[in-house]
Amino acid sequence: MTTYRAAMMGFGNVGRAVAELLLRRGGDVERDHGVAVSFVLVADRSGVAVDPNGLDLRRLLDVKARDGGVAAYPGGGRPGVSPLDALREIDANLLLEASPTSVRTGEPGLSYIRAALGRGLHVVNANKGPLVVAYRELMDLARAQGVELRNAATIGAPTPTLEMARYALHGARVEAIEAIPNGTTNYILTLMEQGRSLDDGIAAAQDAGIAETDPSLDVDGWDSAAKILILANSLMGADVRLDDISVEGIGAVTAAELVQMRAQGVALKLLASASGGPDGLELSVAPTPLPLDHPLARLRDTAMGVVLHTDVIGDLVISVEGDSPLGTAQAMLRDIVNIAV
Amino acid sequence: MTTYRAAMMGFGNVGRAVAELLLRRGGDVERDHGVAVSFVLVADRSGVAVDPNGLDLRRLLDVKARDGGVAAYPGGGRPGVSPLDALREIDANLLLEASPTSVRTGEPGLSYIRAALGRGLHVVNANKGPLVVAYRELMDLARAQGVELRNAATIGAPTPTLEMARYALHGARVEAIEAIPNGTTNYILTLMEQGRSLDDGIAAAQDAGIAETDPSLDVDGWDSAAKILILANSLMGADVRLDDISVEGIGAVTAAELVQMRAQGVALKLLASASGGPDGLELSVAPTPLPLDHPLARLRDTAMGVVLHTDVIGDLVISVEGDSPLGTAQAMLRDIVNIAV
Repeated sequence: MTTYRAAMMGFGNVGRAVAELLLRRGGDVERDHGVAVSFVLVADRSGVAVDPNGLDLRRLLDVKARDGGVAAYPGGGRPGVSPLDALREIDANLLLEASPTSVRTGEPGLSYIRAALGRGLHVVNANKGPLVVAYRELMDLARAQGVELRNAATIGAPTPTLEMARYALHGARVEAIEAIPNGTTNYILTLMEQGRSLDDGIAAAQDAGIAETDPSLDVDGWDSAAKILILANSLMGADVRLDDISVEGIGAVTAAELVQMRAQGVALKLLASASGGPDGLELSVAPTPLPLDHPLARLRDTAMGVVLHTDVIGDLVISVEGDSPLGTAQAMLRDIVNIAV
Repeated sequence: MTTYRAAMMGFGNVGRAVAELLLRRGGDVERDHGVAVSFVLVADRSGVAVDPNGLDLRRLLDVKARDGGVAAYPGGGRPGVSPLDALREIDANLLLEASPTSVRTGEPGLSYIRAALGRGLHVVNANKGPLVVAYRELMDLARAQGVELRNAATIGAPTPTLEMARYALHGARVEAIEAIPNGTTNYILTLMEQGRSLDDGIAAAQDAGIAETDPSLDVDGWDSAAKILILANSLMGADVRLDDISVEGIGAVTAAELVQMRAQGVALKLLASASGGPDGLELSVAPTPLPLDHPLARLRDTAMGVVLHTDVIGDLVISVEGDSPLGTAQAMLRDIVNIAV
């Protein structure tokens, strides 16, 4: 039996979904895989909640729903305490990183991950930002410390692409990657194919809870860019920065164009790709016309997918019908178990 | 560093492809994963070749190509020796099972696997037959002996479905499976959609080296049945036998029917499925009309794919563009490495 004493940074949609999933399936995971997880520290904007014997997840969720912050947790709540200070003091062996994402600075997750790895904690990370800013540094630090940094939840969470690379591609090489890693823009493009305007599509995505209040990260292609960066660095041994990627979002795409292309048997998709070129690896994000028999052309609504072009087993296609906080939580859970076993 | 002293049963297309892949990528695997593989025993119809210090793979392939059997291997060749006797005596820690398949008796692979597990060897198995006949017995025996029996290469080899189940579905449950696990019938149906007859399609598949001289295992649906059995037993905790599956092949399908369906926006596919019904798990193989937006409808030629319907992350779709001995060999290689690490 492996027991994780986890510090959870961030208790938004993803962090809460991890708690919900553990309440629902923690018993199964303990029985089937011999892995138990308790939260000894949870941090959000309100401060932290701490219990060396493990916080009560049901109560934690109730407190968060009722009071808006974990600092109201009875007994262990500490309003205004810095998450980083708490992380540096807590007796934990696992960081669950699910704090807000910045692909420009990587903060605050970058500091949390550095601190955790520095103290010898394993890290299960759902935050693209730190990887975009410091992929190699963090992977090297984990290796030097003899711990693991796993990132399944960062690349279109339920799509098990990083597991494929780790557990199913031995002796094969990934020569190119094509991906539709952003469900929000795919949802908007699906609506636009039906004749709705970009602004209409964004509003509908916001109404459906799919797009952020500020949708620019998705619409301008930066979320897709962050994900193809992580995929290329993870699967192709690259060391790419965000500035190395040619990024074009869907802002200039019109419904008329989409409708016309569809009539011609082509689907316009926000495609992220990585492939070897004469000057090394080339990464791009751009609206791309795909013939309807392309393996990613059929992905509609919030569906996401990846094609790995390999030398030994040909093209491997993986897709899921959509993303959700629960899917992201499940991606974190599988990382936790895979570190243990 | 983990060093496997492997006994390879069968040295046909798959066995030879494992040797070729090890020659090509064995160094990479040793460096990247710390796993080295040598063959101490190889058996085929001619007898066996044995070398406690490891057979020379290049020479083994040359001998096989020149003399048709491994028993001609200089020094270590033993014409007419029983593979089972040799397996019982050899100092090995891994069985690679790639002998001819019988889904009715499971032999000779069933005896090889029982003998190997009984002696405490790990088993990496590419042979559906033993699993169809004795899935639970063999998995239980492996567990009791504290060794592993892995079967990635049995279910449409390059499709990493068993890896998905093992490494990416923690906390999620597979509620139903749909699969096109047989590339040969999919290839024949693709030709028939273009108006060619069944017999024509079979002949073309044979010419392309895709179908066996006796194509009935594929055409009558038994290969697909064996694979959905293995998937259901592996992913849904079932204990299904071949007799429990409703099996209908493509023998009664006509080109006219396929052409007409395609015109109506439907693709007829040989679908294998497993799902919970009122009387427990129901498994079937049958020609099935799929709407063109079904995730498996786009699979043409020798492509194969699987949809896992899960409760927590929705529908997960995995497909590959085709099968090959090299793909099967790669599936065996990933099992070898995954046992070690």
